[in-house]
Amino acid sequence: MANAEDNLLDWLRDAHAMEQQAETMLQKTASRLENYPTLKARLESHIDETREQARLVKSCIDRRGAGTSAMKDAAAKVAATAQGLSGLFVSDEVVKASMASYTFEHMEIASYRSLIAAAEAVGDGETARICGQILQQEESMAAFLAEQLPQVTRQFLQRSETPGATAKH
Amino acid sequence: MANAEDNLLDWLRDAHAMEQQAETMLQKTASRLENYPTLKARLESHIDETREQARLVKSCIDRRGAGTSAMKDAAAKVAATAQGLSGLFVSDEVVKASMASYTFEHMEIASYRSLIAAAEAVGDGETARICGQILQQEESMAAFLAEQLPQVTRQFLQRSETPGATAKH
Repeated sequence: MANAEDNLLDWLRDAHAMEQQAETMLQKTASRLENYPTLKARLESHIDETREQARLVKSCIDRRGAGTSAMKDAAAKVAATAQGLSGLFVSDEVVKASMASYTFEHMEIASYRSLIAAAEAVGDGETARICGQILQQEESMAAFLAEQLPQVTRQFLQRSETPGATAKH
Repeated sequence: MANAEDNLLDWLRDAHAMEQQAETMLQKTASRLENYPTLKARLESHIDETREQARLVKSCIDRRGAGTSAMKDAAAKVAATAQGLSGLFVSDEVVKASMASYTFEHMEIASYRSLIAAAEAVGDGETARICGQILQQEESMAAFLAEQLPQVTRQFLQRSETPGATAKH
């Protein structure tokens, strides 16, 4: 048995760790890109959003009166997942990186959808509102990545066949 | 430099390994669930779809005249990712499992969106058609999981607070 408030707090900690990991992954990906300016620019603007999202989630944790002692566990778990995603998307090539970003966005989307339900269940309207706001940003980023993916794929294939061109990033 | 046909073939191999891993993850999750019958039933029907998807992707690989010698590498990479996802969603609880399934579905969605563009780029209409068909199934499964997630979250929280009830699965 665990009460709903404790579950909500655990999940907020997971979400905070997830946003920190998102920032790391986005920075790594964006910094490598040279030949895909549209994608690079959108990733960079999402880094700013992501930092603000981490701050907002932290504000929910603080408002609920919890310390950060359990934050380390959550961070370690998320790091393992991000490692796995990079394992699949082992190459630093743009197509895999786009797919990894899109996948990670949906981990975030799932988290916030669940968090909204949990916050509403315990009557924490402010946390629900903040999570709803972040959810919209994540959905917008995911939609951008989905839309770009076919074009990024075509560009990558073309550049791969062009002597002297760098296709990967 | 790599030609587009070689890239397409590599990506089809990745997709095949991904479907095999999806089957394993879905079976593990579905077999554990006891108190969430709607979710369990949908996961089970998606296991059948997933097996058929693996067969279809394999048919594209075979039709393109490639052997399966490079299949092992792809499988190892996907296994690492799935491990990472289970690392994050370390508990066997239903909320985390739903989130992991939803996230994995989007890795599949990204793969098929990219594969469709790649298949079209090399003029392989049959592969594009098959990937389009699979993409619809993945999107439908993802939509189901997204829709279920708030309700699964609420049920989990309620069961967690109920003495004698099992909330986790």
